[in-house]
Amino acid sequence: MIKKLVIFGVGLIGGSLAMSLKKANYCNTIIGCSRSVESLQKAQELGVIDDYTLDPIEAVNGADMILLAVPMGAMGSVLQSIKGHVEADAVVTDAGSAKASVVAAAREVFGEIPPYFVPAHPIAGREKSGVEAAIVDLYVDHKVIVTPLPETDAAAEQRVIAMWQATGADVESMEVEKHDQVLAATSHLPHVLAYSLVDTLSHSDASDAIFHYAAGGFRDFTRIASSDPVMWRDICLENRDAILASMEEFQANLQILHQQVSDADSDGIMETFTHAKAVRDDYMKKQST
Amino acid sequence: MIKKLVIFGVGLIGGSLAMSLKKANYCNTIIGCSRSVESLQKAQELGVIDDYTLDPIEAVNGADMILLAVPMGAMGSVLQSIKGHVEADAVVTDAGSAKASVVAAAREVFGEIPPYFVPAHPIAGREKSGVEAAIVDLYVDHKVIVTPLPETDAAAEQRVIAMWQATGADVESMEVEKHDQVLAATSHLPHVLAYSLVDTLSHSDASDAIFHYAAGGFRDFTRIASSDPVMWRDICLENRDAILASMEEFQANLQILHQQVSDADSDGIMETFTHAKAVRDDYMKKQST
Repeated sequence: MIKKLVIFGVGLIGGSLAMSLKKANYCNTIIGCSRSVESLQKAQELGVIDDYTLDPIEAVNGADMILLAVPMGAMGSVLQSIKGHVEADAVVTDAGSAKASVVAAAREVFGEIPPYFVPAHPIAGREKSGVEAAIVDLYVDHKVIVTPLPETDAAAEQRVIAMWQATGADVESMEVEKHDQVLAATSHLPHVLAYSLVDTLSHSDASDAIFHYAAGGFRDFTRIASSDPVMWRDICLENRDAILASMEEFQANLQILHQQVSDADSDGIMETFTHAKAVRDDYMKKQST
Repeated sequence: MIKKLVIFGVGLIGGSLAMSLKKANYCNTIIGCSRSVESLQKAQELGVIDDYTLDPIEAVNGADMILLAVPMGAMGSVLQSIKGHVEADAVVTDAGSAKASVVAAAREVFGEIPPYFVPAHPIAGREKSGVEAAIVDLYVDHKVIVTPLPETDAAAEQRVIAMWQATGADVESMEVEKHDQVLAATSHLPHVLAYSLVDTLSHSDASDAIFHYAAGGFRDFTRIASSDPVMWRDICLENRDAILASMEEFQANLQILHQQVSDADSDGIMETFTHAKAVRDDYMKKQST
């Protein structure tokens, strides 16, 4: 149970958590805090939060759970704004899509990682963003990865895990570096590829016809290119090293396939496609069980 | 109306056409022909075709419409097998995903493009293949591109257009080269990228975790990597030049994005993502109208 939850940045992620915890009766009070009074007012009108304040110090006063659900680039300044005002029994966690950069921001602000700081990442999203897009069941059966550090207090970690479990999420722990590598490969790289593909085709001399004849496969393949550009730019900047490594692995692999096609290497192409289909079919089988 | 339709290769594409034309009462008789008696028997059991034969010459005897729905690599040998036996009033068409290679095969077999030969491409498909995957409404509201040649008889072209319109498809004409370029960009390249991405991730040292944490965006993005490897290998070989050109455009564009990420070029990344999202959203808007 949480007495007072403060959410910095009440958008899709923070808003959906608030809705879910309210439904589960897991919080007495949920307070929103951000720099945008309009979005906070909207969140309150929608019943997502109980109240709000623009003052970070007032927000964290008496709070036992503090969630940072602001854009990745704003994590450091929010931490700075609450430094010295976090209650002794409070836990601070975040919902950023990359973890090393948040940990670095915390280390910079506090000089060391506070034991009450528990980095976490709910793997859920929609193309839409903002509190209007928040839904009560966003986290049901979705994975949340908690990336505790050696400095992290075990009880603090447990409270963050319990909060996310109350939303119906499946919570697992992982090291920071592993998280960033895995997410770069499974989420950040596909987004980068989808954006780049649509961008490439838009500059083709046949782009009108290309989009006119694009069918179902294309629609699914490019769905994630409709995601929020600001959020994904921030992710590219905040998880830069892991994303670059993933891009380079992919580029090297694609170059091999290019060579196989160029060589009309029937067996080589067949091996690549057959292997990929088997892996993808196996993935889907595990998803459905 | 068609008196006798012969379908070479009664799989997903040929089978769905047969089912649709039967429903529309557009054919008196539909005969299947291929090298696999098992698949022909299954097609007949399912009521997709009226009868079948393994003999191409017997198959085209009395036929006024001949469809080649065999794998791309088999087009030439089927044309060879019916050479000299096509009825005077018959039309020959195909359903290949690339057109220049089919045209080249026809030119090689006949020495010139016969006026009754009408290359065409129904843009429809499923991950599943084979006659068991055939469905009656596969072509409803889907596009079929007809790529007539200067040698093509206008009446023959019109009969192919009418046949596809009877399935509920939206038929348009295009030049062979344009077709191959557009399909390479909009369909073949995304398939190549999806196969290559899954292949890349499967070879990562974190591949177990990658597939464990892969979420909805990844599932949609890689759906086409579950497509038939034989068919897509053939397409890569048959539309090689256009696919290589598309791959190279994409690779160059991805390298620019790689550089932007590497440089932490916030404005550059933002411009690419914002442009791509706008193009993709615009595409979806046009799809839904």
